[in-house]
Amino acid sequence: MSFQFDLEKIDTDTSARLGKIITTHGVVHTPAFMPVGTQGTVKSMLPEEIRNCGVEIILSNTYHLYLRPGYETIKRLGGLHRFISWPHPILTDSGGFQVYSLGSLRKITPDGVMFRSHIDGSEHFLSPQKAIEIQETLGADIMMCLDDCTPYPATYNQTAESLNMTIKWAKFCKTAQTNSEQSLFGIIQGGSYLDLRKQAAERITSLCFDGYALGGVSVGEPKEIMYQITDSISPLLPADKPRYLMGVGTPSDIVFAVSCGIDIFDCVIPTRCARHGLLFTNSENVVIKNARWREDGNPIDETCDCHTCRNFSRAYLRHLYIAGEILAIVLNTIHNVRYYMKLMENIRLAISENRFGKFREDYLNKETNL
Amino acid sequence: MSFQFDLEKIDTDTSARLGKIITTHGVVHTPAFMPVGTQGTVKSMLPEEIRNCGVEIILSNTYHLYLRPGYETIKRLGGLHRFISWPHPILTDSGGFQVYSLGSLRKITPDGVMFRSHIDGSEHFLSPQKAIEIQETLGADIMMCLDDCTPYPATYNQTAESLNMTIKWAKFCKTAQTNSEQSLFGIIQGGSYLDLRKQAAERITSLCFDGYALGGVSVGEPKEIMYQITDSISPLLPADKPRYLMGVGTPSDIVFAVSCGIDIFDCVIPTRCARHGLLFTNSENVVIKNARWREDGNPIDETCDCHTCRNFSRAYLRHLYIAGEILAIVLNTIHNVRYYMKLMENIRLAISENRFGKFREDYLNKETNL
Repeated sequence: MSFQFDLEKIDTDTSARLGKIITTHGVVHTPAFMPVGTQGTVKSMLPEEIRNCGVEIILSNTYHLYLRPGYETIKRLGGLHRFISWPHPILTDSGGFQVYSLGSLRKITPDGVMFRSHIDGSEHFLSPQKAIEIQETLGADIMMCLDDCTPYPATYNQTAESLNMTIKWAKFCKTAQTNSEQSLFGIIQGGSYLDLRKQAAERITSLCFDGYALGGVSVGEPKEIMYQITDSISPLLPADKPRYLMGVGTPSDIVFAVSCGIDIFDCVIPTRCARHGLLFTNSENVVIKNARWREDGNPIDETCDCHTCRNFSRAYLRHLYIAGEILAIVLNTIHNVRYYMKLMENIRLAISENRFGKFREDYLNKETNL
Repeated sequence: MSFQFDLEKIDTDTSARLGKIITTHGVVHTPAFMPVGTQGTVKSMLPEEIRNCGVEIILSNTYHLYLRPGYETIKRLGGLHRFISWPHPILTDSGGFQVYSLGSLRKITPDGVMFRSHIDGSEHFLSPQKAIEIQETLGADIMMCLDDCTPYPATYNQTAESLNMTIKWAKFCKTAQTNSEQSLFGIIQGGSYLDLRKQAAERITSLCFDGYALGGVSVGEPKEIMYQITDSISPLLPADKPRYLMGVGTPSDIVFAVSCGIDIFDCVIPTRCARHGLLFTNSENVVIKNARWREDGNPIDETCDCHTCRNFSRAYLRHLYIAGEILAIVLNTIHNVRYYMKLMENIRLAISENRFGKFREDYLNKETNL
């Protein structure tokens, strides 16, 4: 079964959408959140733990896997799904954002990006064609076009120029694609300029990709700008294709963006916060190292059904965290990933029951920390 | 059900014994190996993963839990089993060995040991009575007497003096015990002097403990001395009580000691080696970072039934290890703990089938690395 998107329902009060992405490796119910598995692992989690949290798709980073262990190596070992023992859908990014993040270690040319490895300083060239070759070789279910991520702030002219590069590269990516079993998403750039974003949406959607992403958000711009872009651009995208807001975000960001019609998200927040001892709950978020939890026998969240909450107290999690134990990271990550997955389940349920507008209102009013 | 030891069988060719320890938290089949859960966690493992490896009893360290989070705290949280979510048997050491390891941070007096915390430098006094109070409060199934661990090397007189302290303290421990549901083991010291070891065995066993341990081994003495002491002292211990060789050892050490009639072992080797990427197999042990595994699609050990070997290749484990991923430690630890548990299962099976002598011979001849 090759890639397919079934739009099942649009909310009556908002633009929220309920749908299904069907890939050769399984179904993804949308709105969906993808935990980030940068180096071929969602940090500290066994694949079965990821699955038990309700995860249907993970994101993996082309840049990291290209450098280590190498995409040809992964191919010889049976592809990425087999290599990491995750037989479910995988989206790979193009490497563009990581290369962008290298700052002075990269140089953009019309044909692609010259960059130096953060591991050993070796020099590499990533072209749009190469980005597709790598992602096809890895065997990603959803591939992303190589884009030029515009920094914030950037002038209008810089942004327009960068955008032109992204569109040119998108065409190269589309042409380079050889395997229709693997879907390819276009990326809409345009920085913080709404008219450039609109222009990008028009030009990228005219290239007919399997889905569309808003890129270059959450790169330092004020949150209002990200919200405004999401709200304005999402409705311009074809209704019958999935919409992906890259690198977003907090639970509030996700609830807001879903109401704009976004279908897919990825973010390191749940996993990174877990490693730093910040745990999400439906009331106040928990900073696990705080002395107030020293003798607290309750779980992180009474209402949570994750393995951590079913078995361990805040006091034990605090002890593990203070003692620097690896199990602290393991248990915290399980909880935060499950929190995000439960949020997505609740979002989907609310849409299906025609009460997402109320859900959004309650959620955005309630949240205290993030 | 309070503590009970059923000796089921003694091997015909060697002194190996098959038995069962019955505690209020469950049964332990002997010869048994206890993974070490120093700070209330077998590093990186979920309790259910520990159990899935076949573990029936773990060791936890009184010294560490006394300092952090504190034994009164653990008591208020329902005891150690509940705190760490391990409802199966737990043996706690007395804290003596950890305090001994503090070196210049401790001072021995006739009434106990004055020591400074390795965490914050605070001063504490551990008496035999206090060691029992802490272990009873934690709720250990098997408690250990506070002993004075004799360093290696030590003169005959030093060793005799230290031994007298251990025996005096053993009496205090016995008297201090208030709960007969929790068993108490005596510890035989005597350094590398066989006659002192024999004297210790006689004097300690006359105090009628629930089991007996050989302590102060594996503290730097040549392996032959440890083997000789084990071989000579084990037969002097009451046949109807379990025998515990503390802090031992490599798979070879265990196979040898079982043949001398030892029933219980603990050691950090499987877990610590896992964290450093040394993986046990039935043929050659695997140093996972080696370049030769870069594209090796096979599991660590074809014959192993652990979660890691059933799902992941050497190439993936190498990638995780080189990339510094936490999952490397998680997966390596699962494998090494399962390796030790399978070794114990094979030992018990060999004893039950009257072929342990052959098993020992094959094993000690075969092993290449450790």
